[in-house]
Amino acid sequence: MKIESYAQGRWFAGEGGDTVRNAITGEPVATISSKGLDFAGMLEYGRTVGGPALRRLTFHERALKLKALAQYLMERKEDYYALSHATGATRTDSWVDIEGGIGTLFAFSSKGRRELPNACFVIDGVPEGLSRKGSFVGQHIRVPLEGVAVHINAYNFPCWGMLEKLSANLLAGMPAIVKPASQTAYLTERMFRDMIASGIFPDGALQLICGSTGDLLDHLQCQDVVTFTGSAGTGRKLKQHPAVVRNSVRFTMEADSLNFSMLGPDATPDTPEFDLFVKEVVREMTTKAGQKCTAIRRAFVPRAQLDAVTEALKQRLAKVVVGDPAVEGVTMGALASIGQRDEVLSRVQELQQAATLVCGDPAQFTVTGADAQAGAFLPPLLLRCDQPHAHAVVHEVEAFGPVSTLMPYDSVDDAIALARRGEGSLVGSVFTYDNGFARAMVLGVACFHGRLLLANRDCAKESTGHGSPMPGLVHGGPGRAGGGEELGGMRSVMHYLQRTALQGSPQMLAAVTDRWIAGGDRQPGVHPFRKNLEELQLGDCVMSDEREVTLADIEHFANFTGDTFYAHMDEEAAKVNPFFGGRVAHGYFIVSIAAGLFVEPNPGPVLANYGVDNLRFMTPVFPGDRLKVVLTCKQKNPRITENYGEVRWDAVVTNQDDKLVAQYDVLTMVEKAGAAQKAQLGAAA
Amino acid sequence: MKIESYAQGRWFAGEGGDTVRNAITGEPVATISSKGLDFAGMLEYGRTVGGPALRRLTFHERALKLKALAQYLMERKEDYYALSHATGATRTDSWVDIEGGIGTLFAFSSKGRRELPNACFVIDGVPEGLSRKGSFVGQHIRVPLEGVAVHINAYNFPCWGMLEKLSANLLAGMPAIVKPASQTAYLTERMFRDMIASGIFPDGALQLICGSTGDLLDHLQCQDVVTFTGSAGTGRKLKQHPAVVRNSVRFTMEADSLNFSMLGPDATPDTPEFDLFVKEVVREMTTKAGQKCTAIRRAFVPRAQLDAVTEALKQRLAKVVVGDPAVEGVTMGALASIGQRDEVLSRVQELQQAATLVCGDPAQFTVTGADAQAGAFLPPLLLRCDQPHAHAVVHEVEAFGPVSTLMPYDSVDDAIALARRGEGSLVGSVFTYDNGFARAMVLGVACFHGRLLLANRDCAKESTGHGSPMPGLVHGGPGRAGGGEELGGMRSVMHYLQRTALQGSPQMLAAVTDRWIAGGDRQPGVHPFRKNLEELQLGDCVMSDEREVTLADIEHFANFTGDTFYAHMDEEAAKVNPFFGGRVAHGYFIVSIAAGLFVEPNPGPVLANYGVDNLRFMTPVFPGDRLKVVLTCKQKNPRITENYGEVRWDAVVTNQDDKLVAQYDVLTMVEKAGAAQKAQLGAAA
Repeated sequence: MKIESYAQGRWFAGEGGDTVRNAITGEPVATISSKGLDFAGMLEYGRTVGGPALRRLTFHERALKLKALAQYLMERKEDYYALSHATGATRTDSWVDIEGGIGTLFAFSSKGRRELPNACFVIDGVPEGLSRKGSFVGQHIRVPLEGVAVHINAYNFPCWGMLEKLSANLLAGMPAIVKPASQTAYLTERMFRDMIASGIFPDGALQLICGSTGDLLDHLQCQDVVTFTGSAGTGRKLKQHPAVVRNSVRFTMEADSLNFSMLGPDATPDTPEFDLFVKEVVREMTTKAGQKCTAIRRAFVPRAQLDAVTEALKQRLAKVVVGDPAVEGVTMGALASIGQRDEVLSRVQELQQAATLVCGDPAQFTVTGADAQAGAFLPPLLLRCDQPHAHAVVHEVEAFGPVSTLMPYDSVDDAIALARRGEGSLVGSVFTYDNGFARAMVLGVACFHGRLLLANRDCAKESTGHGSPMPGLVHGGPGRAGGGEELGGMRSVMHYLQRTALQGSPQMLAAVTDRWIAGGDRQPGVHPFRKNLEELQLGDCVMSDEREVTLADIEHFANFTGDTFYAHMDEEAAKVNPFFGGRVAHGYFIVSIAAGLFVEPNPGPVLANYGVDNLRFMTPVFPGDRLKVVLTCKQKNPRITENYGEVRWDAVVTNQDDKLVAQYDVLTMVEKAGAAQKAQLGAAA
Repeated sequence: MKIESYAQGRWFAGEGGDTVRNAITGEPVATISSKGLDFAGMLEYGRTVGGPALRRLTFHERALKLKALAQYLMERKEDYYALSHATGATRTDSWVDIEGGIGTLFAFSSKGRRELPNACFVIDGVPEGLSRKGSFVGQHIRVPLEGVAVHINAYNFPCWGMLEKLSANLLAGMPAIVKPASQTAYLTERMFRDMIASGIFPDGALQLICGSTGDLLDHLQCQDVVTFTGSAGTGRKLKQHPAVVRNSVRFTMEADSLNFSMLGPDATPDTPEFDLFVKEVVREMTTKAGQKCTAIRRAFVPRAQLDAVTEALKQRLAKVVVGDPAVEGVTMGALASIGQRDEVLSRVQELQQAATLVCGDPAQFTVTGADAQAGAFLPPLLLRCDQPHAHAVVHEVEAFGPVSTLMPYDSVDDAIALARRGEGSLVGSVFTYDNGFARAMVLGVACFHGRLLLANRDCAKESTGHGSPMPGLVHGGPGRAGGGEELGGMRSVMHYLQRTALQGSPQMLAAVTDRWIAGGDRQPGVHPFRKNLEELQLGDCVMSDEREVTLADIEHFANFTGDTFYAHMDEEAAKVNPFFGGRVAHGYFIVSIAAGLFVEPNPGPVLANYGVDNLRFMTPVFPGDRLKVVLTCKQKNPRITENYGEVRWDAVVTNQDDKLVAQYDVLTMVEKAGAAQKAQLGAAA
């Protein structure tokens, strides 16, 4: 079998090629080569075919496609499980890779529709005042970059590694070229074939390079993005590639790091946290045979617990069954290749300069259901270093396999100092039921970490664990971890968007950004509640009549609602209140009568007020004040899958002196044209 | 005079040194050398002395120091103006540099106190649900990096360049080493002396290198940050420095770019936009003698207007008076040095391969009040290229002086294509009164630009112009502009903070982040409105009694407030509403009676409800429903300069079936302990 690439809309088999082998049997699985690919042509195809097609869609349209793709792949998941076995993975390992990856598509689809507008660009932040009279204002927007996202991935997560990155760039509106690591590229290619066959994303949105990237990077331009996951050495080389540097190409790197886990001083052997810690260290050593960039490489415990933890880990590690994951009872599979196994062994030798191997013997261990020599097997290897300050190697050298080093600490400050010696990690975890220790650790080491897990008995049952990046949380870390950031929900989409500050008149900025800005034109006329979503225009407004607020009103409202706060009821007490100096109307009364002033009571396209944002009371309202409100259509967000959309209104309440009393956004649902008829048809059908 | 450095708490005069000359007279001003500085020691001093001292302060405390520093420098501004003259600057040029820089300190001080908490870290985003039952959640925070910010600045803004960067890192809690460009370092050093003399920021927070950076970069670590402003060539070298790459040091670059300005097709000579464009091009050519990274290098006009614009520009440029800015009537000063002048001349020669010089002659021009040979003078030089697609040089070569190239475009698409040929710029501007053209340009070129100015008659009077970065707007651009981002208000502070995802139980995350999270423990007991800011604890709550909502209540509220929307008043009409299916209570009624249920009416430390955030109505309330509310103390933000602080409360309204009816944050002002007494003392004094 030949692992193919997908370039410029066609599958392509490169000439010749290297052999990729089954991690368990050592048998050849396929050959891989990208020789003959037109790499510059692929970039250009992405830029000129895939990019424009993606950008013709809105964020919501792309989000719906992510969901469709996730469903399509999920229906075919058993095909991927079957192939994943050859990578050495257990069913659980494969689940993380396959369903974890597909789950990220689902998560980004729903987050995208919840947190991004159904539009082609994002409004970033609030308008910035730039002038005294308000005729000149600023507004940031974010627009999709018009290049290609090149994803250079690691071998350990052939599915998840691809999908977690694609989720962000596809949602952003950028096409991608995926380049999986050769060892496990056959699984990536298998899934990619389904993605293309589904026809869900437009031509040019997705391309695949199996094999070398050739001269691809030479052709990068300023709108392209490169993401790299893998070894720091390779990553640094790519980061310094002349085209990357010359064109300021955005480069995100996620490298393996010396992640720590810390047992709290409170977590003696009789506590749940002690057991949770032991379980987690073993889980992280054995899942994916320890081939995870987030695995626990450095496990720290109070010096008093060092022996107890050593024993507990040894006991638990003794239960690990290494072998062919297809065989019943096997709990840890093979590494991805013989080369990786040998690499791990040589790193372990380096670590042994400073640490003692206390559990596992690479020269002698049982392999269940497979040939120990042919497959890339290793037993879990636990090292112990009693003087961690004396040895740099335990904080710097990573054995990317089922390997961890256990070390003691002597005080909270010492724990912090040791964790920081990783010089930048993807993740750290703290097992403690002591909030104070957790807080000290977080404030002491957060600046060196992209993620920190605080594990204890309260969250143990539902915890996703030390090693699992989550779609909604950032994944990446400073320093040795590469300095990049992925995931984190919509934060990751921003990596594929350019932030641009716009300056101009409120009227022109509103026309450009599709959001009305204070100071922009207002159009009174037909009450805007009489207009459906399509008829409604930004700036359509209601300018209300005045209503006087009497003392009787205030007392009546207080008694009716039960809110008899003294500032409304007791002149003497209200007088000494530093904000009021006398009885004032309730804030809730102000917004209630404002609604009374702006509402159009008859049935119409405005269906419901579903909320209020950013309500601020600016000037107190005293008995005798006369209030009026201006309600202006500010932003429309039509839903693709519904007969209505969200409309945001700017509400400004002023008093008889035109002083600003209250300001807020009113959120409503407004029907689309013909929605009522459609609904009736639906009911009839 | 010797320009000194400030290192490890002491002023230091380097051995030997180069001569820096007066831009107008060519006379020596000073010598500059950093020879003998302990660069590694400076970094370590910043990390171990300056950083910890800064981080012991909160964001608000640091923001107040920025204000104090701004006031201190503003009182001494005339000293800087006096020295700025030697850089070749006019009074207006100096104003931008000196008062623009000090203004940035003021802006960051007030924005910092408005938009950041009075705390030592920032909560980033909302909690992320990570589990079904809610026992395991996520929350991002941002903490200060614990290294040093190294600012390598350009010669054109010796004050602003320093202050705009320091505003962000000081507010973030990071110390800085400032390295000004040698040509104008005497002015930076002068202002820096005052900054140190003021004693406002702690020892180690501010250091200065005048002269070469020596081996400074070799000692960078993963918590350090480098910002670079200057030529792309130097910037790229620094970006690839081994220590920067090895340690994933954050590197922000802001390089000169081929910024464009575009006259709209609507802007014929009889329109205000035509005049505004001509004025702006001339202003950008002459301000700072064109030595601005944001200056207009490429001016595009409709082909039909090419001659008219050429004439108008020539007429206006003819009025420019070049010479010693100290002399009455001089409107453009000298370039920063003879070297810069020669550099510009050689770039102009390159441009002349493709463009014709239509205004200004470097070989023959009048210099008022100074020796034309001794000073670094040039006249404004306008080039014109009638076939801009045929020549790459006009889009690639920047003459960093009073130079601009005028070019025609033939259609909107052509205008977009030409603007994009800058391959990434800091800024572009569009002069038009046509919203459609403005929108097309923005969507066509935003991805290549950090800032876009939309200039027209409505905002002309208050516009800050094409070339001015604003504290609240991002400054930086993709591609040729370096790919960096500065300013943008609090966005720039984030460059000095590490984002870390925290995971754990709501209770532990609340203890770590000082913000109560849904699912965390609640403490009923003494009504929390009876507690002052210090007594109040996160999780303190009111669990209210129930109140039944009757149809009479709904009708009463409708008639009292005037909000007689049909969904509250008309059963038949409400029935067909897709969200309700029957008469429902007003949203404002729900929050009003919720306040009635949770409020403590007597005078106490809770002074006022100043707003509501993120109010969402989740389940409709029908007549007969019984509502209750839980109000929980969520976050406290004590004000340094006030007797009170802001307290944010989580409000959850549920019905008799425990269904979520409404959820929102209530914002109040709560007195500090002893505030009442303090206020009385204040009144008595």
